[in-house]
Amino acid sequence: MKHARVLIHGHAQDVTIDGEFVVTAGGHRYRHDDVTWLPPVQTGTILALALNYADHATELQLDKPEQPALFAKLPNTLVGHLGTVIRPAGVQYMHYENELAVIIGKPARRVSVEDAMDHVKGYTIFNDLVVRDFVINHFRPPIKPKNFDTFGPIGPWWVDAADIADPHNLNITTYVNGELRQEGNTRDMVFNIPEIISYVSQFMTLRENDVICTGTPKGISHIHPGDVMELHIEGIGMLRNRVIAEEELLEGAMTAEVAR
Amino acid sequence: MKHARVLIHGHAQDVTIDGEFVVTAGGHRYRHDDVTWLPPVQTGTILALALNYADHATELQLDKPEQPALFAKLPNTLVGHLGTVIRPAGVQYMHYENELAVIIGKPARRVSVEDAMDHVKGYTIFNDLVVRDFVINHFRPPIKPKNFDTFGPIGPWWVDAADIADPHNLNITTYVNGELRQEGNTRDMVFNIPEIISYVSQFMTLRENDVICTGTPKGISHIHPGDVMELHIEGIGMLRNRVIAEEELLEGAMTAEVAR
Repeated sequence: MKHARVLIHGHAQDVTIDGEFVVTAGGHRYRHDDVTWLPPVQTGTILALALNYADHATELQLDKPEQPALFAKLPNTLVGHLGTVIRPAGVQYMHYENELAVIIGKPARRVSVEDAMDHVKGYTIFNDLVVRDFVINHFRPPIKPKNFDTFGPIGPWWVDAADIADPHNLNITTYVNGELRQEGNTRDMVFNIPEIISYVSQFMTLRENDVICTGTPKGISHIHPGDVMELHIEGIGMLRNRVIAEEELLEGAMTAEVAR
Repeated sequence: MKHARVLIHGHAQDVTIDGEFVVTAGGHRYRHDDVTWLPPVQTGTILALALNYADHATELQLDKPEQPALFAKLPNTLVGHLGTVIRPAGVQYMHYENELAVIIGKPARRVSVEDAMDHVKGYTIFNDLVVRDFVINHFRPPIKPKNFDTFGPIGPWWVDAADIADPHNLNITTYVNGELRQEGNTRDMVFNIPEIISYVSQFMTLRENDVICTGTPKGISHIHPGDVMELHIEGIGMLRNRVIAEEELLEGAMTAEVAR
């Protein structure tokens, strides 16, 4: 089953997806276009992996890591499906990164690789946006390049783990303005999902609705104001977000100010 | 005024501190020993600075950074005053780090250094615990060394910004088992508070109850099971936490299991 969190008449609701309909707990049905999409779970900690596809490490001219290379995506980054991503003023190299996101279902602490998948409740799509201008300093954590406001679109929904026969065999494709830019498959992860969960759980307790973004394959490219990013992952769906310039947002705000 | 969040008869309450008393909104007064201390605010994002005191960078044989070196402390690390810190099994170099923590009071986005302090509502003490065994890889973020469960004691209370005449002239002293181990003063920060806030706000919106831990001065030392850490910051107070071994916790849990 697919689960989402949407606004209907301004009210946040946990819903399920039935084809072209969004279904509330009370059984009311709405078309996808008639709701506002929120991040599909109320996320706890969001960890992401750097360089977890060898071909992506190669395109960045970096070695693949010997251990999962973790960083954090912070709450200010979150945006739902169809939400707007802001391209910060004055930056040069802004990239999407299409990633399979694992949603934790029950607490995991010091779990083995064998038991790790029992702690997964489902999967969604995460766009791990980055301004690569600021990744020059590899000495210290990429808080800044990875955590601009709106740099974490997620959704549109999450899919029960039971409905994904093999999370390590899903095609990943990204389109920008309808043009294919990125192609990969989750089979090419350097560290697979149970290995990552087991690794993280050796030092921290993963909790329900914590999220792990499993890295992106080769195929990054620059994005610009006006671009529409469509991130597809087989078996899940498609996450679409449009990019606007920060300057445009400011002008919009000023126009709204004048209009008021 | 000093503000805290405590459990009284199992019920979480926002309280103020009046000398040796904790005072509820309803005016009830309790002795400090009669409440359980929670983290003093319901924290949003917690950012911390690495190497923000030159003498600390020197003791680690590292250069001081050219920009604020940021990393995240995640929610699983949080512990209140008098809470227990768990020393993970199998680690060698576990260190306290006594840090002045700045609590954001209102949203800050692209604020100037001049205006930054208007966004601070108060200060508390943060123990930015670390297992330095795992900081060997400077290439990628210190999620693991800094984010073991219980590695973020905070409190006991926060103090209104208006009550701290100069946050850049506060003595920092740390005692372990009553022995003085760390001495410094917030005047020696590499990047001061308004510089850090302005820097962070250039890429992300800081929100109320986001916290910035401003780094630790020279004087780190190893801590072991049974140690009691007392972190003093002038004008704020003292944050005390005891360390137990992870193995001891497991034995305790097993004893409880048998007793049931």
